Amino acid sequence: MATAVKRLLVGRALRTEQASHERLTKKTALAVFSSDALSSTAYATEEILLVLAVAAAATSGASFTYVVPISIGIAVLLGVVATSYRQTIHAYPSGGGAYIVAKENLGTTPGLIAAASLLVDYVLTVSVSIAAGVAAITSAVQGTSYAWLDEHRVMLCLVFIALIATANLRGVRESGSVFATPTYVFVISFLFMIAFGLFHYFTYGAAAAVPATAALKTAEGYSLQPLTLFLLLGAFSNGCAALTGIEAISNGVQAFKKPEAQNAATTVIWMALLLTTMFLGTSILAYLYQVHPKESETVISQFARIIFTGPWGWFYYVIQAATAAILVLAANTAFADFPRLSSLLARDRFLPRQFANRGDRLVFSNGIVILAILSGLLVIAFGGDTSRLIPLYAVGVFLSFTLSQSGMVVHWLRERAKLRRGAESRDEETGPSYFVTDEVTAPANWKKSLVINGVGALATFIVLCVFIATKFIHGAWIVVVVIPLLVWFFKAIHKHYVMVAKQLSTEGLQPLPAVKHTVIVPISGLHRGVVYALRYARSIATDKVQAVYVDFEEEATATLKDKWERWGTGAQLVVLRSPYRELTRPLLRHINRIAKENGNEIITVVLPEFIPAKWWQHFLHNQSSLLLKGSLLFKKGVIVTSVPYHLER
Amino acid sequence: MATAVKRLLVGRALRTEQASHERLTKKTALAVFSSDALSSTAYATEEILLVLAVAAAATSGASFTYVVPISIGIAVLLGVVATSYRQTIHAYPSGGGAYIVAKENLGTTPGLIAAASLLVDYVLTVSVSIAAGVAAITSAVQGTSYAWLDEHRVMLCLVFIALIATANLRGVRESGSVFATPTYVFVISFLFMIAFGLFHYFTYGAAAAVPATAALKTAEGYSLQPLTLFLLLGAFSNGCAALTGIEAISNGVQAFKKPEAQNAATTVIWMALLLTTMFLGTSILAYLYQVHPKESETVISQFARIIFTGPWGWFYYVIQAATAAILVLAANTAFADFPRLSSLLARDRFLPRQFANRGDRLVFSNGIVILAILSGLLVIAFGGDTSRLIPLYAVGVFLSFTLSQSGMVVHWLRERAKLRRGAESRDEETGPSYFVTDEVTAPANWKKSLVINGVGALATFIVLCVFIATKFIHGAWIVVVVIPLLVWFFKAIHKHYVMVAKQLSTEGLQPLPAVKHTVIVPISGLHRGVVYALRYARSIATDKVQAVYVDFEEEATATLKDKWERWGTGAQLVVLRSPYRELTRPLLRHINRIAKENGNEIITVVLPEFIPAKWWQHFLHNQSSLLLKGSLLFKKGVIVTSVPYHLER
Repeated sequence: MATAVKRLLVGRALRTEQASHERLTKKTALAVFSSDALSSTAYATEEILLVLAVAAAATSGASFTYVVPISIGIAVLLGVVATSYRQTIHAYPSGGGAYIVAKENLGTTPGLIAAASLLVDYVLTVSVSIAAGVAAITSAVQGTSYAWLDEHRVMLCLVFIALIATANLRGVRESGSVFATPTYVFVISFLFMIAFGLFHYFTYGAAAAVPATAALKTAEGYSLQPLTLFLLLGAFSNGCAALTGIEAISNGVQAFKKPEAQNAATTVIWMALLLTTMFLGTSILAYLYQVHPKESETVISQFARIIFTGPWGWFYYVIQAATAAILVLAANTAFADFPRLSSLLARDRFLPRQFANRGDRLVFSNGIVILAILSGLLVIAFGGDTSRLIPLYAVGVFLSFTLSQSGMVVHWLRERAKLRRGAESRDEETGPSYFVTDEVTAPANWKKSLVINGVGALATFIVLCVFIATKFIHGAWIVVVVIPLLVWFFKAIHKHYVMVAKQLSTEGLQPLPAVKHTVIVPISGLHRGVVYALRYARSIATDKVQAVYVDFEEEATATLKDKWERWGTGAQLVVLRSPYRELTRPLLRHINRIAKENGNEIITVVLPEFIPAKWWQHFLHNQSSLLLKGSLLFKKGVIVTSVPYHLER
Repeated sequence: MATAVKRLLVGRALRTEQASHERLTKKTALAVFSSDALSSTAYATEEILLVLAVAAAATSGASFTYVVPISIGIAVLLGVVATSYRQTIHAYPSGGGAYIVAKENLGTTPGLIAAASLLVDYVLTVSVSIAAGVAAITSAVQGTSYAWLDEHRVMLCLVFIALIATANLRGVRESGSVFATPTYVFVISFLFMIAFGLFHYFTYGAAAAVPATAALKTAEGYSLQPLTLFLLLGAFSNGCAALTGIEAISNGVQAFKKPEAQNAATTVIWMALLLTTMFLGTSILAYLYQVHPKESETVISQFARIIFTGPWGWFYYVIQAATAAILVLAANTAFADFPRLSSLLARDRFLPRQFANRGDRLVFSNGIVILAILSGLLVIAFGGDTSRLIPLYAVGVFLSFTLSQSGMVVHWLRERAKLRRGAESRDEETGPSYFVTDEVTAPANWKKSLVINGVGALATFIVLCVFIATKFIHGAWIVVVVIPLLVWFFKAIHKHYVMVAKQLSTEGLQPLPAVKHTVIVPISGLHRGVVYALRYARSIATDKVQAVYVDFEEEATATLKDKWERWGTGAQLVVLRSPYRELTRPLLRHINRIAKENGNEIITVVLPEFIPAKWWQHFLHNQSSLLLKGSLLFKKGVIVTSVPYHLER
């Protein structure tokens, strides 16, 4: 039954050889790897406005004008980070995730910190993207007869998560065919909206603006206050959600067509340009049309409604549909990344081995299931509200940026050292004109790279500090607590696995003499099951078999002794007294006694057990042997063997 | 931990020899065995009034006057049943419960029907008595600052049930010391109340009577209607709750001092007289003082308040306290009877064996726990309201009365046959003056006994029919459904046990040749745990040992093959391919193949397993061996042995 359901949901199993590795062109790669980054356009501007709205009353709405400079600041940061990651791509053409880069260059603990931040980040990517996607849908139905959907946001989110998880368990690949269409529809329609919106504004002007403070949604946890630098920094932090997912290409360099690094680096530039344009464009439109965050409609939906009126009205729905689609794709990206990173961690023995197993469909099923559960719980806990999840989001992202960039700095310093050593060895050993091979990979322009990554590391570190300072009380503290816990957890697991490996190693093990063991058969009387068990016990015994009977009633004991001659198959019958009508304790005491007498020997306890024909009949049997098994399970030197006797009916 | 809690609640274990058998004098026996019967005085009158209240509006309150004739009718029935049970006592001096009498004389199915009715009856005794006891308490606190207790009736009931169950698990005996005081305080205070109440009435008259229809509580499920014969029969049925528990003495004849039967028969008369007096007295007082059922106060509490005023006011609380106490004792009786009957059924293999096991304190713990759970559920389902439980109550009681009395009729007919045969054999074989021993137990006055039990059977059968007719839709249908289900359940269990016994019997079993078995060791690599398991496998093998490895990765397989020479302890290494990365299926297929090749042989699967030092580490290990064990559990001819390797840290 369970198998049938699984087959229906997941499809039939795939052979190991069927794992294929698609190589992507730049265009499809852009679609595959940018959905996460580009999709943040859908909420980043709104998150800035939500914080600015806090000061709207104090500034008579003037605070909203800051959305443009803040967005420009974020765009600059984006440029720095993207440039920084191009260096990583060149240095790690086999894929330079933050975990690998930090571990290799900074050490295990920074690597684990990066891994923990990434895992947290992936969970949040799913929750945030799905929540934002659902918001795009519920915004579109405002004022229609489907407006009730807004009440069921959490449920909708959970349905989407379940669908994506199932698709991933079936083994949806990050194939171009799936990704290209929605991504490019999103990009083109957004760019069109921005162009059309600007044109529309300069032709018709903004529609009657809503009074700045009417029914305003503000960022959760803020009280209304005057506009301060701290508040602006808070708005900036919120907007930094736009940068999430920017590292995706550097993780997946291997998936590009040759020359991989070259193509990947070019794609990063394209992605950064598109993201900057779309994000800035969105912020500018929000500013021009003076839309302000509302409870039940997104900012983009608001100005899209204003822009696309009359004959263009249908395009509003294109925008909303494209937004929802790209956000679902972004969540899907996390469903590829989380299991992949957990499998890496499991292979390095920082997570339970199960995360490294490929399931029926060649995907890391356990990681997919865990991710779906965790992101579902987050959605429930935060009511499916993007803006309440945002404060948790960027801490992990920027922590991994910082670690990855710092790792690159160390990487270049090592390259420099290598170059110097190379130069020295050239001078000393092989003469000035000879080039050793490993020098080829050490680029001479390490200085430039060092500066770029250094600037990237510094910038992301500063933003991280700003982020923690401004968002700590709004939820970032959760992540600040969870990441060290995760690292501790990774280390505990690793320590355990290492210790087990050491204890299990055959190294230093001397060939052992043949084992001798005493066989004990606890019996409840004499019946076929017991006779079979005794017969089996006799066949495995290296010594005499002992049948042990606990005496509750003298009469029954006498009957047993009478029958023993004929059916005891030569085993010695030991009768134990049990004044308190207990079964387990006298048996355990007896086993202990024998263990002591025999020294280091093994004791095999052969339990006669019958297997009833129907499941409910289990309740009528074997209760005592279950208890006995339970108490013997952890006993050293005792091996328990159940000899089943199958009942027919 | 669990053991410590158990010891605290239940006390330390008792030795089997400590089971003692107290013999009771008539006076203490009356206290021990009558609490159930006498306690029904506390609610029987009220239950009659509740039905009569339905017609109060139609008759301007005159319907209530019928309480006295109905009570007289019930008293007559009580006399018939009590007389009938005296015959049972003489015929079954070793204890003649309805189950035994019906089974012996009418056959197994009627016996099981009686048993099922009794079990249902005991559960209801607990629920009804506790609910009525709690009503006595909440009535007493009406108008005081504890009136809020009325809101928490269900909780109070559950607390009492839990307390009584715990006391019984500790092994409270039905000892005179516990029972005598509350029972006699109840009897004396009730008799005093009746006498004083009559005196008070004829001196002062009734206080200002409440208008007949004001805030009247009526029986649940009835709509207001005119007074009909059917309604009067319904009131009669409700009042028959007074007869519950009357059979108790006949079950416990053995507990009396010698001559047991004589003493028990005398005690029955006393009990019947007391019960009749108290029940009739209560009904007459209710009639005289014109009290009518109210939602939050019992009828007895109402007239006791009127009677005991001024300097006698304190006696009202004596009445309420004595009522509550006797009702708790009545529930306690069921806690002795239910486990005893289930242990009889279990010994006859109609219930799971566990019900026949005496626990630490020599009581049938499983029965006690089940009774507490079932009665607790009933209390919750019916909101702790006595009057809603009553329609379920008497069906079981009267069904068991009828079966028991009919059984006695058959018994006397058999005695007659025996007498006749005796007379014949006297004539033919041994001459007229010789008396064979078994004739002494066959009383010559079988005719009188036959008539008495016949009348009893008929009377209780008619009441049963009336009961089902009038109460079916008010809840009696539940019992009508449950009893056949229980009987079916008993029979299913019995059939299973008989079948198992037949299959397990050593009868016809031929001595078997020594068993030969193939030993298979599934391994996941080569480590100490595996080496130990291989060594153990070698020691139990009658043939060559086979180590089976599932190949996921060619590299790992090659390493294993290299190490095999040194550590394989001579076992044959079999490598299985697994294109779908499955572990269990290839292994199972291999085991099946070997089973087929070897014919009828047994296959022993030796599983290397490690036992981690800490519980949470279990999650990191042995997942595959658990799965494998699960799939091998029900496989015929396969014996699974785990060889534990204990990790130190």
